[in-house]
Parts: sequence; structure tokens; C-alpha cells
Amino acid sequence: MEPFDKIAIIGLGLIGSSIARATRRAGLAKEIAGHDASPVVLNQAAKLGLCDNLHADVGDCVEDAGLVILCAPVGAFKAIAQDIAQHLAKGAILSDVGSVKGAVIRDVFSYVPRDVHFIPAHPIAGTEFSGPEAGFASLFDGRWTILTPLAGSDPAAVERLKDFWEGLGSQVDVMDSAHHDLVLAITSHLPHLIAYNIVGTAHDLEKVTEGEVIKYSASGFRDFTRIAASDPIMWRDVFLNNRDAVLEVLGRFNEDLSQLQRAVRNGDGQTLYDWFTRTRAIRRAIVDLGQDTAAPNFGRNKSQ
Amino acid sequence: MEPFDKIAIIGLGLIGSSIARATRRAGLAKEIAGHDASPVVLNQAAKLGLCDNLHADVGDCVEDAGLVILCAPVGAFKAIAQDIAQHLAKGAILSDVGSVKGAVIRDVFSYVPRDVHFIPAHPIAGTEFSGPEAGFASLFDGRWTILTPLAGSDPAAVERLKDFWEGLGSQVDVMDSAHHDLVLAITSHLPHLIAYNIVGTAHDLEKVTEGEVIKYSASGFRDFTRIAASDPIMWRDVFLNNRDAVLEVLGRFNEDLSQLQRAVRNGDGQTLYDWFTRTRAIRRAIVDLGQDTAAPNFGRNKSQ
Repeated sequence: MEPFDKIAIIGLGLIGSSIARATRRAGLAKEIAGHDASPVVLNQAAKLGLCDNLHADVGDCVEDAGLVILCAPVGAFKAIAQDIAQHLAKGAILSDVGSVKGAVIRDVFSYVPRDVHFIPAHPIAGTEFSGPEAGFASLFDGRWTILTPLAGSDPAAVERLKDFWEGLGSQVDVMDSAHHDLVLAITSHLPHLIAYNIVGTAHDLEKVTEGEVIKYSASGFRDFTRIAASDPIMWRDVFLNNRDAVLEVLGRFNEDLSQLQRAVRNGDGQTLYDWFTRTRAIRRAIVDLGQDTAAPNFGRNKSQ
Repeated sequence: MEPFDKIAIIGLGLIGSSIARATRRAGLAKEIAGHDASPVVLNQAAKLGLCDNLHADVGDCVEDAGLVILCAPVGAFKAIAQDIAQHLAKGAILSDVGSVKGAVIRDVFSYVPRDVHFIPAHPIAGTEFSGPEAGFASLFDGRWTILTPLAGSDPAAVERLKDFWEGLGSQVDVMDSAHHDLVLAITSHLPHLIAYNIVGTAHDLEKVTEGEVIKYSASGFRDFTRIAASDPIMWRDVFLNNRDAVLEVLGRFNEDLSQLQRAVRNGDGQTLYDWFTRTRAIRRAIVDLGQDTAAPNFGRNKSQ
């Protein structure tokens, strides 16, 4: 694709810094401008040389940028949208990487000038680490990015953003924001909520010490601790901003768990066996699609 | 340690076959005898050369063995105990690798001759794969094995079994069987039940297709599919045989989840933030103790 003359990355954590790295890797922009609300993060970004220029003022950062990507926690988007609105270049694409889309549209859309293309996006990629040092250029390779353009979006602008994400290494899908929020509620938000929950439960048990939980965690528990180590602010904002979809899938989860609980209580081995058998196929499909490793234990060192 | 003249491994799946390999690696037995109820598994074991001799008859397998280890699903232990009782050598150690200990003692103890040392054990190690080909010699390296000797066990026999597991690469703890079952209920059984549950929930949603769940699984869901791909018979037997402890920790999990659900419903960001913050410390402790990798995403390939 034809590189952007300038892109602006607002928020230089794991995702924002990975976009900067991948943009540079693929030569997708002649100039990368960066902003972060945190002076500490700005300083780290400077040391890492992630961007061509850094701005403490978010309005300065977006001036003349052909593409502006919001990479802050979604709870901060409304204020950012207000701050940048009058600085956005005519014809620019304004996008984001938030894990929820309906709330982002609610918070941002009304501030977007009519001559700016607002196209929400969400790369399905990440690690449990946070901050500019945690990012890497290949984070999006082989992953999916979902665009949720609004009705009436300019097809050429959507296509240009799609090309950009493909340039970063991602595959791109387009869907409705409400459907995105439901899909992510089951594939991402509920898993995180459950992981956070069980780690908290284990922490609070009186009869089993935390030391025991840690020592014997290789029996299953440790897997949950990885995503339960994700950034607390980001995840607070996700749950505050995708309430209805999360409560919907959580309701289904609870119904199913009641059924399994009853099977355990009643010693109903057939129900347990049937349930445990059909779940294997999904794992296989995920590995076959290249979305996870086939190696045992996620390919951890054998001794781990 | 002084090697055993003969050990007998009953059940040649992931754990049994790994014991065979690790025993040979460390020279812990002059002869390794193996049995499996499945002719297919016996045939695989023969091709892999896991044991010095293989027996379709479990009684034959244990004859003259100084150490007999039950590595079948725990639901089969009672029948095996009945079948081997009269074949066990005087002074032999009879042990197992079951993920529950109270039920194993209930099912096995009454059949054990008085001149045999019955010492239940549980290595906290495994992968999501099953069968003799899935085993490997280093499976127990750095992991923990818990022994739950009965009151009045011969200390010398317990010590010998401890030496054996250390020889396999494991660290060894000793505890009461009831405490073991509670510790494992939170560190292993509940995580598996929840993982199986969420994978089933995702499978059954009408508004999100299975294809979407699979494509976007890298956002958290895929982690759960690994342990939800574990052996269904083994796990059915675990839940049938550790009912009370599983229901106890599941009750606590449900209480906690109700609290998080209420926080999501009420938009209570402070409760969510506080909960999500304290769970990070446990992850760090697990990594520091060498029970998991520090690498992002479990050290999967960066593009995965």
C-alpha cells in the first residue's frame, strides 16, 4: 500500500507500541507520531525510539496525520476525542484498538468532524504484559483484526484501513459493532472475568494456603493466572463498557455450570463424559487454524 | 537410590509411560513391567519399547515387583486392586498417580494384603495429551509429587517411594489425603471444570458461530481450550471421586463470581479494578517459583 505521510498513535502501551514497531517494519508511514498521557511512558517510548516524534499534547500529535489510532484504555476515549477533535486533519481516518466497539462509537462519534473518517477497529492480539517495552513488531502476524465501520462509511477509507492492518501482518474481518461486542464477550471478556475470578477465589480460601496454590499450580490453575495478570485498568474499562453482552454470556455460563455442578453432585458420569468429549474438537480446530500451538502445554519448556 | 529389581506400571498412558521413560533415564529399576487394559495401548507401548516386558494380564504384571504403580483412571482402581491383590509380592510398595486420594484409599485399601505397603501418591504434572506416545522422560522434572501415606505406614517404605519420585526428577511433599483433595480441588479440578464449562458454553451459543469462536480465540478463549482437551475418562473419574471438595470450592467460586457479576451490572469500576490488581501477584509468584514460564503468552511462537 501507499504509505501514510503521517500516522499518530495515541497511547504507547503494549498495542500502541506494537503498532509503531510493525508500521516501521512494513514501511507503512513516512512519519510516526506518538502521544501518551503518562510522562513515564513517553520517556520509555523515547528511549526505545518507537516513534519519529513524541508529544505530551495530544492535539499536537494528531495534526496533519492521515491516520490516528486511539490505543489508550477505552475509558479514556471520550476525553481524548474531545481534545483532538479540532486538530484532526480533513480526510483523516480516526480509528482505535478498543476491545469494545459499541461504547467506543457512543463515546467518540459525536466529536468526530464530518470530514474525518471514523472507523473503529479491534486487533485480536496481545499478551499479559503491559507498557511500551512489552510490544513487538510481530504481535499481529496471523491474528485477526475486526473493523466495525458505521453505516455510510466511505468504502475507500475502510479499504485503506484494511490495507494498513494487513500491512501490520493481520488478517481483517468486517462486522457490525454489536455483533463484535457479543463475539468478544464470549471469546475474550468472559474468559478474563472467569480467570480473574478463580485466581481471587484461590487467594481467599482459608483452608488452602497461597503457598500451596502456587506450588501445585501446574495442575491447571497456572493457566488462568496468565490472563488474570492482564492490565487492570484496561480490563476494568472493558467490563464497564460491554456490560450487556458480558452479562448475557455470563448468564449462559452460569446456567451451564449449574448443570455440571448438578452432574458432580449426583455422580452423573455420563453427562460429565459427554460434556468433556465434545470440547476436544474445538481445541483441535483452533490449532488447525493456526490460532494456537499444537505443542503440549503451549510449548512451555518441558520441565515447565 | 538402590534400584528396584522390578517395578510394575499399571496403565501406560501419558503418566504411566512417562514414569517408564523417567525410570529408565535414571536407572531406578532393573526391570520395568507394564500392563494396560487396552490391547491398542499395549501394542503402542511395545512399539515404543517403553517396558522390558508387557502383560495383558495385570496379575502377571505385578508378580515379584517391589513397586507397583496404578496409572489407570481412578474409576478402574477398585477392580485392579481386586485383580492384583493375591499377586502382590510380600514387602512390595503399592502406589498410584491418581488426582484424588480419599477415594483411592476407599477403593483400594481393603484389598491390600497386610504385608504390602500401600502409599498413595500424586505427581502434579501432565499435558493435555493422552496415550503412551504423549509421555516423555522429563515430565516430572521440577514438578511436585504429593504422597499421602496412611496412619501407621512404614517410614522406610515412604522414604523409598520418596527417593523414587525424586529420582524421576520430582520434588516431594507429604500430606493428609483429605487436605490433598481440597488443595487439588482448587488448583486443578475446579480450573478443569470451568474450562470445560466455558468451552461448552461457547459451543452452544446461537448468536456467535463456532467458526467465530475459533477465529478470535487468541483473545483469551484459546487458553481454556487446552485443559478442556484433557482426557474425558480421567476427568469424569476425578469429579465422580472428589465430589465434596469440588462442590466446596465451586460454591466459593460461584459466590465470588456473583460479586463480580454485580460489579459489572452496577458499573462498579473500583471493585473490578481492586480485584484485577491483586490477582497479578499470584502470577508473579508462580513464575518466580519456576512453576511457569515468564515469557509472554506462555512463550508460544510470537506469531501465535
